[in-house]
Amino acid sequence: MGNIFGHSFRIATFGESHGPALGVVIEGCPPRVPFDLDFLKKELARRRPGQSDLTTQRKEEDQPEILSGLSPEGLTLGSPIAIIVRNKDQRPSAYTEMKAAYRPSHADFTYDAKYGIRAVEGGGRSSARETAARVAAGALAKTVLDHACGAKITAWVESVADIQMPQLAKTPTQKQVDASPTRCPHPATAEKIAECIRAARSQGDSVGGVICCVISGLPAGLGSPVFDRFEADLAKAMLSLPATKGFEIGSGFAGTQLMGSQHNDLFIKKGGRIRTSTNRSGGTQGGITNGEDVVFRIAFKPTATILQKQKTVRPDGKETSLAAKGRHDPCVLPRAVPIVEAMAALVAVDHWIRDRGQNESFGRCGRKA
Amino acid sequence: MGNIFGHSFRIATFGESHGPALGVVIEGCPPRVPFDLDFLKKELARRRPGQSDLTTQRKEEDQPEILSGLSPEGLTLGSPIAIIVRNKDQRPSAYTEMKAAYRPSHADFTYDAKYGIRAVEGGGRSSARETAARVAAGALAKTVLDHACGAKITAWVESVADIQMPQLAKTPTQKQVDASPTRCPHPATAEKIAECIRAARSQGDSVGGVICCVISGLPAGLGSPVFDRFEADLAKAMLSLPATKGFEIGSGFAGTQLMGSQHNDLFIKKGGRIRTSTNRSGGTQGGITNGEDVVFRIAFKPTATILQKQKTVRPDGKETSLAAKGRHDPCVLPRAVPIVEAMAALVAVDHWIRDRGQNESFGRCGRKA
Amino acid sequence: MGNIFGHSFRIATFGESHGPALGVVIEGCPPRVPFDLDFLKKELARRRPGQSDLTTQRKEEDQPEILSGLSPEGLTLGSPIAIIVRNKDQRPSAYTEMKAAYRPSHADFTYDAKYGIRAVEGGGRSSARETAARVAAGALAKTVLDHACGAKITAWVESVADIQMPQLAKTPTQKQVDASPTRCPHPATAEKIAECIRAARSQGDSVGGVICCVISGLPAGLGSPVFDRFEADLAKAMLSLPATKGFEIGSGFAGTQLMGSQHNDLFIKKGGRIRTSTNRSGGTQGGITNGEDVVFRIAFKPTATILQKQKTVRPDGKETSLAAKGRHDPCVLPRAVPIVEAMAALVAVDHWIRDRGQNESFGRCGRKA
Amino acid sequence: MGNIFGHSFRIATFGESHGPALGVVIEGCPPRVPFDLDFLKKELARRRPGQSDLTTQRKEEDQPEILSGLSPEGLTLGSPIAIIVRNKDQRPSAYTEMKAAYRPSHADFTYDAKYGIRAVEGGGRSSARETAARVAAGALAKTVLDHACGAKITAWVESVADIQMPQLAKTPTQKQVDASPTRCPHPATAEKIAECIRAARSQGDSVGGVICCVISGLPAGLGSPVFDRFEADLAKAMLSLPATKGFEIGSGFAGTQLMGSQHNDLFIKKGGRIRTSTNRSGGTQGGITNGEDVVFRIAFKPTATILQKQKTVRPDGKETSLAAKGRHDPCVLPRAVPIVEAMAALVAVDHWIRDRGQNESFGRCGRKA
Repeated sequence: MGNIFGHSFRIATFGESHGPALGVVIEGCPPRVPFDLDFLKKELARRRPGQSDLTTQRKEEDQPEILSGLSPEGLTLGSPIAIIVRNKDQRPSAYTEMKAAYRPSHADFTYDAKYGIRAVEGGGRSSARETAARVAAGALAKTVLDHACGAKITAWVESVADIQMPQLAKTPTQKQVDASPTRCPHPATAEKIAECIRAARSQGDSVGGVICCVISGLPAGLGSPVFDRFEADLAKAMLSLPATKGFEIGSGFAGTQLMGSQHNDLFIKKGGRIRTSTNRSGGTQGGITNGEDVVFRIAFKPTATILQKQKTVRPDGKETSLAAKGRHDPCVLPRAVPIVEAMAALVAVDHWIRDRGQNESFGRCGRKA
Repeated sequence: MGNIFGHSFRIATFGESHGPALGVVIEGCPPRVPFDLDFLKKELARRRPGQSDLTTQRKEEDQPEILSGLSPEGLTLGSPIAIIVRNKDQRPSAYTEMKAAYRPSHADFTYDAKYGIRAVEGGGRSSARETAARVAAGALAKTVLDHACGAKITAWVESVADIQMPQLAKTPTQKQVDASPTRCPHPATAEKIAECIRAARSQGDSVGGVICCVISGLPAGLGSPVFDRFEADLAKAMLSLPATKGFEIGSGFAGTQLMGSQHNDLFIKKGGRIRTSTNRSGGTQGGITNGEDVVFRIAFKPTATILQKQKTVRPDGKETSLAAKGRHDPCVLPRAVPIVEAMAALVAVDHWIRDRGQNESFGRCGRKA
Repeated sequence: MGNIFGHSFRIATFGESHGPALGVVIEGCPPRVPFDLDFLKKELARRRPGQSDLTTQRKEEDQPEILSGLSPEGLTLGSPIAIIVRNKDQRPSAYTEMKAAYRPSHADFTYDAKYGIRAVEGGGRSSARETAARVAAGALAKTVLDHACGAKITAWVESVADIQMPQLAKTPTQKQVDASPTRCPHPATAEKIAECIRAARSQGDSVGGVICCVISGLPAGLGSPVFDRFEADLAKAMLSLPATKGFEIGSGFAGTQLMGSQHNDLFIKKGGRIRTSTNRSGGTQGGITNGEDVVFRIAFKPTATILQKQKTVRPDGKETSLAAKGRHDPCVLPRAVPIVEAMAALVAVDHWIRDRGQNESFGRCGRKA
Repeated sequence: MGNIFGHSFRIATFGESHGPALGVVIEGCPPRVPFDLDFLKKELARRRPGQSDLTTQRKEEDQPEILSGLSPEGLTLGSPIAIIVRNKDQRPSAYTEMKAAYRPSHADFTYDAKYGIRAVEGGGRSSARETAARVAAGALAKTVLDHACGAKITAWVESVADIQMPQLAKTPTQKQVDASPTRCPHPATAEKIAECIRAARSQGDSVGGVICCVISGLPAGLGSPVFDRFEADLAKAMLSLPATKGFEIGSGFAGTQLMGSQHNDLFIKKGGRIRTSTNRSGGTQGGITNGEDVVFRIAFKPTATILQKQKTVRPDGKETSLAAKGRHDPCVLPRAVPIVEAMAALVAVDHWIRDRGQNESFGRCGRKA
């Protein structure tokens, strides 16, 4: 259990870090949506290892293969779309020592406790490599979302360790975000972050940080109270990502220090529709989108895998010590940006289809706002 | 959609704030668990309005009625348990003005946008009154959890506005928490918080804050990677609560500022089993419990309903202003404590049963650790 | 588990035969549908015990109470609708003997085997009394279906024991069906069936039979291949009813004896749309409705409870014998007709909403075909 | 929607008849079950086209590839197991004519009506080729079932057209079933059936029939009343198969002609446990297995594809005629036998895990009855 996500637009993912392949089956996709293999590849490339000197040097081209669900013209058929990505650069030998000892703050111990067996190499299913399948599904979700209502999703690195970028006046473009390998759209901060990550790497250490994400262009009315509030599903989606420790929407934790009279978003009429003058709510009220930008933040801990020697125990409880040897990201945030976007797209499309159906989303005659 | 929570231990809730009744159907409960009506009442009393001068003065006794699922001896039958609580103190007249205008930062506008209709009185389904049903289900979940593995759940108010209690050396008892109507277990802080809430009320304003919750006594092995990680389901559960804006587990947002070498929890052998020397992970690794305390925090915004006059619009977009007249909590946190505990219990039991089944949880011969 | 039915229009039922109440929570219902309490009562009255001398004489008025989900004007709000029916005529004493012995072909033994506990009186959750909740939900589903596309559902008794009515030229009306307490719309056959049931009763015995059901007016396009084919969900719905032993759609078992060239339904153009010249398919092809009548049959076994003495064992395995003393139906079919219709309505509405969404079903401006 | 089956042991299938590949993702599988690639291949070979002169001559080796979820030693890891089978012998040209006209009693028209697009070649997703994925998943389910409780599943062809084999004294072995390419275990009947199928083929026609299936060795207690009764889930599973028109369990439709006193299964004590003296119930009572053989039958219509010319219409409604040219089975039953077994295995394992959990099924120390 636990490998299927979504209610009406659902994905089932599979694959271990060093197994034959990773992949995803996407079902509930509206028919007749043009799905672009180039766009899929581009999204996967944004998550791929080895993009820059700030990420792991594992060599994976992450070439996707679509096995089903498309017409010869590249239109979705309404049937499940399966996408696989083969693993190429497996180096199981790098993990020999890890078989004998539990890596601190990794899932080795808990997988053993749960299943009584684990895929030792690269953490198997617990590896962040699993997220390639999410990004593949997210590429389709972004496409559906764009066709459904023109909504866009943009995430970026807001802080790493104690380096925090200043508040931007408006949501950056993806181009601005991707301009730096750090995926921080504020050049001066990006430079500091890059330095910080390189310093951590050179010390055999790691750093964490915060990603901010905005979904803009969603209509009011998405979200299914009471349990499947839009932000509740976002929170679950984000906390299902490896290394995440926190989620906040709108004013978040800081907002708890305001008075109600300061915090409330006043309704106004603007551009012919009902808007709010501020957006401390973060785009949802009562669990339903209100037509403003959905704005949320996710906390990522520093990568658990570090090259420094750490004390730990073996499966039999005997004390030992361990230093990682595999190829690892000293900071997961730059590569996590497209993953966060993918999960956000999956949540948004799922709620769109709950509200409007698999087939009415696009009617019988193309795009429908 | 959106009113069913859980996968194997599932609840379906219903009820509007000023409708005839609220309630819940709980299914997947293991058979032969003694469910105590007194305990149910006690839990509901902890959430009830009118507990103290810090909460709303709406008069609701919240007397539960169990309609199904128990044997004459009070044992669960394995069939669904339905519990209802009738609404008594409805005052629809208090909401006449709110029909004509959208309350700022409330769900009036979004419910209208989604459904094209709304229960005006007290916010209908979007009211926090809905959480009575969650607390009722949580009472059963706590009972099941106790019988299954002896696990306990304790939540408390950690901060209100900018008043923050000091870090405690160990998890407070429920008695310590409930000793103050603020549900802050640190007496000096509790006093300041009470004053702060009274001040907000007297100004017709409101305050928010942070609740901390600990689940202790869970075995290692609960949680279903990759999407249904234990903390992902907790995050969803908490963000499904009215007025929540954030969730963090273990080191949370603050942990993003540490280096990996500072953040990692080292494994040690202690008391005959594998433990961690610190608990920055917050009790889960790779989405699976590791046997340490599960520790998380939830951010609650200041109550949206305030007695001060605020600008807003009417459904037709025309500008107007509005001051609340109903009876409302100037701060939701004291009453939110048992609600947070209830949701945590529901998540924990759901994962217990996913792992061990509806019937094996207790075997055929009583309690099983 | 097992008490929730449906994917997008979902119901959760609860209640034991001799417990305080039965009920259902319905979620995913489109907003702004007028739900008529009189219609609800009328549907329940069609299932009620004591309708005629052919049914059990248990006295239950089955007065429904709607606890949530409706506006003061009786429109659905889009939130869950909870309906309860209280049990009035409990006579637990009639079941004393049954505590000590397993009733043949009843669920006493299997509930004990599964749960290690059972509600002895009247079979508890396994009683057909549970179906009152289904009929209540079905009343809403019929209403939604009518508003969505004008589709109608009619079931009737086609055979009892070896008495079989002749094939009708067209689907009978509900009035024709309800004209006889047997719910067989062919008067001559109805008379024979009534006699047959009375004879079985006088011998302390019971009889079974076959119900036929037609859904007319559904658009082409409902059903979700491959697993959630329209007929697959119907089959599950019908086999989930007490006492059912078989389901067939269209040509069914008899159709297995035809050649393909005899069996195929040829496409024709008629009345401006694509139709089939015959309907051996029974209204679905490839698991999707084709716009023809959906026609299916359900086999009901003779009632397990009989007044004749039968051999059986006690829970400890010791041999004993047992004769029923409670009030029971000598034939379940007359009262099963509205239950079959209810389940058919639930399946149809669920697929309608999967296809078109909770909110698009009716648009923002009323009925939509 | 519609491509995921099961609640706790779930499969997601994908693939069009003439697309790149078919496949399945299986999740919820207990860890540490040895899964044998040879067994998987053997099961697929039993379903493969071109087995004999009674089946289609499409050449597909159906070589499976396992992409995830197994340890190097072939043990399940508890994570999803993905299996794909590539399509090799596509001949889209055979379907050119079918693009222009709807094949009678096929899904061409309904897929167009639902999705507004369809994979013309071989029926795309509506093709019975899709069932290869089910057989692959069923191979794993059979393995799990065997390890869990030693239960076995055997299906066979009982009748074709009007040729009916005599009732057997006991369940045939798979070897007896597979001895004839007809998969009828009664040699004299098998011969007649083979002749009948060859005759149909030579006339460009097709035949249907009935398959019987027995699950033996299940413990009492599986099944989740009220909606997820064991037989309800079986009925859905079977009616989700292409070409099925009916399902019956135990006494089925014929049993409706018996009196209750003839039909009831009396409880007896035998071999130290509670049994029934007859098995008209077909192995379940109240939707829960009673420890007797689960016995059910499925009606398959004659194959819709025939080589004779038939009248039909084009998508624009214009009349035309059509004769199939592809390679097709004149009778689906021989190849449907392993498919029926696969679906039965999936239902049984799903209920096993609902009852006993993903991890308790096998405990931490191997096989557990």
